[in-house]
Amino acid sequence: MPISISAAFDGGKIAVTRAEAPGDIELTIPADKHADFFQWFYFRLSGAAGKPCVIRITDLEKSAYPGGWPNYRAVVSEDRETWLRTETEYEAGVLTIRYTPRANSAWFAYFAPYSMERHHDLVATIGSKPGVRTDVLGQSIEGQDMDLVTIGDGPVNLWFIARQHPGETMAEWWMEGALQRMVDPADPVARALRQHATLYFVPNMNPDGACRGNLRTNAAGVNLNREWHEPSAARSPEVLCVLEKMKAHRPDFVLDVHGDEAIPNNFIAGFEGIPSLTHRQLALLGSYKTILKRMSPDFQTEQGYPPNSPGKANLSIAGNNLAERFGCLAMTLEMPFKDADVAPDPVAGWSPGRSKALARECLAACLEILPTLRS
Amino acid sequence: MPISISAAFDGGKIAVTRAEAPGDIELTIPADKHADFFQWFYFRLSGAAGKPCVIRITDLEKSAYPGGWPNYRAVVSEDRETWLRTETEYEAGVLTIRYTPRANSAWFAYFAPYSMERHHDLVATIGSKPGVRTDVLGQSIEGQDMDLVTIGDGPVNLWFIARQHPGETMAEWWMEGALQRMVDPADPVARALRQHATLYFVPNMNPDGACRGNLRTNAAGVNLNREWHEPSAARSPEVLCVLEKMKAHRPDFVLDVHGDEAIPNNFIAGFEGIPSLTHRQLALLGSYKTILKRMSPDFQTEQGYPPNSPGKANLSIAGNNLAERFGCLAMTLEMPFKDADVAPDPVAGWSPGRSKALARECLAACLEILPTLRS
Amino acid sequence: MPISISAAFDGGKIAVTRAEAPGDIELTIPADKHADFFQWFYFRLSGAAGKPCVIRITDLEKSAYPGGWPNYRAVVSEDRETWLRTETEYEAGVLTIRYTPRANSAWFAYFAPYSMERHHDLVATIGSKPGVRTDVLGQSIEGQDMDLVTIGDGPVNLWFIARQHPGETMAEWWMEGALQRMVDPADPVARALRQHATLYFVPNMNPDGACRGNLRTNAAGVNLNREWHEPSAARSPEVLCVLEKMKAHRPDFVLDVHGDEAIPNNFIAGFEGIPSLTHRQLALLGSYKTILKRMSPDFQTEQGYPPNSPGKANLSIAGNNLAERFGCLAMTLEMPFKDADVAPDPVAGWSPGRSKALARECLAACLEILPTLRS
Amino acid sequence: MPISISAAFDGGKIAVTRAEAPGDIELTIPADKHADFFQWFYFRLSGAAGKPCVIRITDLEKSAYPGGWPNYRAVVSEDRETWLRTETEYEAGVLTIRYTPRANSAWFAYFAPYSMERHHDLVATIGSKPGVRTDVLGQSIEGQDMDLVTIGDGPVNLWFIARQHPGETMAEWWMEGALQRMVDPADPVARALRQHATLYFVPNMNPDGACRGNLRTNAAGVNLNREWHEPSAARSPEVLCVLEKMKAHRPDFVLDVHGDEAIPNNFIAGFEGIPSLTHRQLALLGSYKTILKRMSPDFQTEQGYPPNSPGKANLSIAGNNLAERFGCLAMTLEMPFKDADVAPDPVAGWSPGRSKALARECLAACLEILPTLRS
Repeated sequence: MPISISAAFDGGKIAVTRAEAPGDIELTIPADKHADFFQWFYFRLSGAAGKPCVIRITDLEKSAYPGGWPNYRAVVSEDRETWLRTETEYEAGVLTIRYTPRANSAWFAYFAPYSMERHHDLVATIGSKPGVRTDVLGQSIEGQDMDLVTIGDGPVNLWFIARQHPGETMAEWWMEGALQRMVDPADPVARALRQHATLYFVPNMNPDGACRGNLRTNAAGVNLNREWHEPSAARSPEVLCVLEKMKAHRPDFVLDVHGDEAIPNNFIAGFEGIPSLTHRQLALLGSYKTILKRMSPDFQTEQGYPPNSPGKANLSIAGNNLAERFGCLAMTLEMPFKDADVAPDPVAGWSPGRSKALARECLAACLEILPTLRS
Repeated sequence: MPISISAAFDGGKIAVTRAEAPGDIELTIPADKHADFFQWFYFRLSGAAGKPCVIRITDLEKSAYPGGWPNYRAVVSEDRETWLRTETEYEAGVLTIRYTPRANSAWFAYFAPYSMERHHDLVATIGSKPGVRTDVLGQSIEGQDMDLVTIGDGPVNLWFIARQHPGETMAEWWMEGALQRMVDPADPVARALRQHATLYFVPNMNPDGACRGNLRTNAAGVNLNREWHEPSAARSPEVLCVLEKMKAHRPDFVLDVHGDEAIPNNFIAGFEGIPSLTHRQLALLGSYKTILKRMSPDFQTEQGYPPNSPGKANLSIAGNNLAERFGCLAMTLEMPFKDADVAPDPVAGWSPGRSKALARECLAACLEILPTLRS
Repeated sequence: MPISISAAFDGGKIAVTRAEAPGDIELTIPADKHADFFQWFYFRLSGAAGKPCVIRITDLEKSAYPGGWPNYRAVVSEDRETWLRTETEYEAGVLTIRYTPRANSAWFAYFAPYSMERHHDLVATIGSKPGVRTDVLGQSIEGQDMDLVTIGDGPVNLWFIARQHPGETMAEWWMEGALQRMVDPADPVARALRQHATLYFVPNMNPDGACRGNLRTNAAGVNLNREWHEPSAARSPEVLCVLEKMKAHRPDFVLDVHGDEAIPNNFIAGFEGIPSLTHRQLALLGSYKTILKRMSPDFQTEQGYPPNSPGKANLSIAGNNLAERFGCLAMTLEMPFKDADVAPDPVAGWSPGRSKALARECLAACLEILPTLRS
Repeated sequence: MPISISAAFDGGKIAVTRAEAPGDIELTIPADKHADFFQWFYFRLSGAAGKPCVIRITDLEKSAYPGGWPNYRAVVSEDRETWLRTETEYEAGVLTIRYTPRANSAWFAYFAPYSMERHHDLVATIGSKPGVRTDVLGQSIEGQDMDLVTIGDGPVNLWFIARQHPGETMAEWWMEGALQRMVDPADPVARALRQHATLYFVPNMNPDGACRGNLRTNAAGVNLNREWHEPSAARSPEVLCVLEKMKAHRPDFVLDVHGDEAIPNNFIAGFEGIPSLTHRQLALLGSYKTILKRMSPDFQTEQGYPPNSPGKANLSIAGNNLAERFGCLAMTLEMPFKDADVAPDPVAGWSPGRSKALARECLAACLEILPTLRS
């Protein structure tokens, strides 16, 4: 059989320019529907067992964040369970991936994928544990359920949302790690959190984008993380229904989980530019970052986005908007697509397992900061 | 939160007439796109924890096989792993399902679903074992890969295809059981088959229909099991590419795996009406059924379809066509949507586990008949 | 650290003559306590990571069955889960095993061990499944429980006993396979057996010998398979309590599971020499062997022990004694320590996995012969 | 069958006074061989499915720590995997345990057992991971291997020893949790520890006592935790070989893991009474306890043993001896047999799962204190 390239599956994204010879495969990444963004790719290569493959993805100058490609290495799996990094280089808009598949089928992606099936299994598995409640908050533009998982019955409301940007799959791996910790009956951190707080998890803010293989937008081509000031049923029902629920269960803490294409480290982006910023909020932000850094050798506070100037925050962004709206600690967690340079792993780079581990420490940091979250 | 019903996921199929109160939910089943067939349903009910739900599916007189509803019981799962039967009755075109969910999310289906994600995981897991080869034979109408898994290197060619009708998910559970047996290094039947035969598995003949939640057709509304006389790239590329590969690796044995809506038992449909029918073929058919019945208490030979009259076989059907075309033993295996009345299980009915067990015995029966398959 | 050899654990057996250098290790096998038998060995080698080890076991002319050593290959494991064969040769009473451990600890054995802990876990796991009953029939000489596992409620009584000879660990792997099949709720053979028969399993007839690392005897140095004519509380309480229970639930079928040192194949030894032999018994014996051979490519009927001459059976042996006593089909199943030459596996040889697979087929053969077992 | 009680297995300990009727079972606990200590019990009850059992253990005024019985609840398991607490009361030297077994076999213990088989499996599984080294340091009095597991290659030497007192099985569950964390390639704490430190684990200091079901002593009746000043080959070879290795890899940190019969909480006992006590040591002790308390809601610092007066430390105890000998931070961790009252769990009490979780946090606390450990 000849080699073939396919992306016709959940989260798949690629277009084939040329794929006759294993040593000369040329691809491009289609943009999100109704939008210009592209960077996420996920495809299957078949028919090249034992052959050194050279895969060139072209036209990346126009990708959402071209600065993300230098020093990036693609992930590949042959069993769809273990995803490892492979030799990759970037030059002049072209990403060149080299890999010799052992078997005839190999899956390549920008980061280890997290499918909607896995999402549904996660919700069902966690939701059928004692003391866990699942709710459908509404529907996405294409009619998919917006899932909320609620755990605990304490007075402090902790909110965790992930994957507004569907191509940032590490955000849902993070959710899997967090939810698994929360339902471990022997875990003292989880038990204490369940007693003193109520935890709200939205594991996937953008199911339509996720199964379409979008990088950053929903089915309408809308970047949900620019909709929090005024979400609408037409453009951003995904945000609208979550925000309504937040109003009913006013957050004392929000963590919005993301991935960042360029910075090779985990970091937290704050809300320093919001109009109503309080010293209390700033102190909490500092505390949380300090605690998390102390707990996780994979976290750091030196690299990150520059804070907004006072009053200059973009209030359409979840973190800023929720910090402003609820006067609470509302942060954006960014994980790398590359590796965490403070503790690099040349084999796996940043990975599902490390995303899950970071989630566990983020919860532990929540517990430590909990007594101070309510003013 | 109010209750909600959703089918916006892989394989999902339902339309909501009314879903305000748990005790009064009314639904219909949309037909396959470009076709009139409907019978498969698969949906999630949310928000009814602890409430007795009464779900009525109406307008079933027009379903593909209305005779399948009497004595049928729907399957339900709350963890998406264990699927059990629930109280169901049928009268005058209305199927009434009763169930009280323990948690807030419950999934209902015509039979335990088998998603495309699970399909890809199956292909990847099996394909990465020693001595297994995966091939992409072509693409479905909507561009999904047509997967072939090849195991063994003996001279006799055994072909297994499944799920021409996508709503017959037990057919892909059967495949999972068969493939798992074939890669067990301690299984003597698998080892002998690998030595004396080459086994070709097409685990899913109709990926487009599968993820769309179709009952019987592909993305073009075509029943693939009426295309084998003359498959075309336009209407039935799924059949075309498999048939081409069969021509290259001429079958000595074909098993086409299906589910039957009405008959509450497993049975094999033969090819008695093909023009070129030989005594040898008839004898092999009789042998295989006898062997399988001896091996599996879940199989029987009394109930089934009436054989075609001599020469009257519909040659567009895979079994007939391949028996005629290759002069080989080519059978259709039908498993029940209900239960196998020869060995009923009131809790699970016919199930994924039993489909997998039957597959293992079908392989053992192949080994026993193997020496006689080549004329 | 220097290298070290130890056998001070469940089932361990070795004595060190010399173990200073990895390339020159010399060992002997101590005899069973109060008996002369020895052949089973099981020890741990530590401290030789990366070094080619040459292990000589001497004085084997006096072992229980010197004819078993030629063409035998020892098993080794570094994770105590996967046991593979390693280079082994025998000459003039000396078995030479060569192996280069990857890590610092490696376990060597005559066959993959089956510990009493695993035995207890098996009884507990199986015993806590629906429809399974565990009983303690009595105690071994050293006070260990004699476990009986009973499954099913049909009229035909099928008895399975294993490991009268404790060094024949494959016999308890066989039991694990049999019991796991019997509790699989989707397995049609198990379901039919449970309906039509009552199955009695004694997974370990000789717990004292097992944890002492004995080859053939119990704590009193008694070969239990020479005690069935007249078991006594003093010498063979293990047989006594099982035989009493058999009298209360009169067997229609007995399979006594063993390992054979010399013959490189699976076979069944019958009871042709018993005084009261009937044609019916002989026919059943022939049938069962034929059926099992048809079902399992790992079984054969050509090699085996020569049948006893008429009337010359040793009635102290379980198979003969029970066939004579109950007029039933009572057989001895022998599995190889080496490999099954009808279907050799150069990597694993005969193995736990294959023992378990054979057990599954033995049960299927029981189901097939079931209607004829009761006269 | 009548009911029966047995303890003839790894770690078992009981003597039967009377066991005719389920409602009137009377038992005693034999003392350790060559010693007077007793408190650990572990036995199997058979034959009482569905019957309310009343089990009285008498003569407990003479047990090692009678103050441990009030408010203690026994653990029971039917599958030997899940161990839950059952109704228990203590009065006047008699512990009364009430339980109605679902199945015919139930195992009762003072705490969830940890067998030598599980120990060997742990050593083998962990030892076969990349970057892990296993060593046999010597042999116990009865010839069992003294296992050391070494992980990491940094300059700081961290030592962890467990189960000097064999009846304190939670100590080896703690080890399992610690070792599993250390080999998780995605765990950032483990990765950092491996980089900056070398970790030495002795998972079981007293294998002879463990398989004999001893409470506190080795095969010679010696309490190993009173031997560190002058261990001898005759009385305490287990301590001798570990101490020799410690001298070769001088500890910067020691954690000696134990269980305490009476205090219903986790706590750390220090070395305040050693002659050479330094401010630095005291500060490290305070730090570690503070860090661990911050990390684990299951840990506390209010309850515990009163510190020794200056200079009054018993230097035969590991913690004191090693702090004195090496001038390092050397602590004794005590976990409860009952529950941790700071975060009680009425179903499981203190448990294997919680012991493992505490181990993970102890490692995290090590990482945090690491930079200060070397003077």
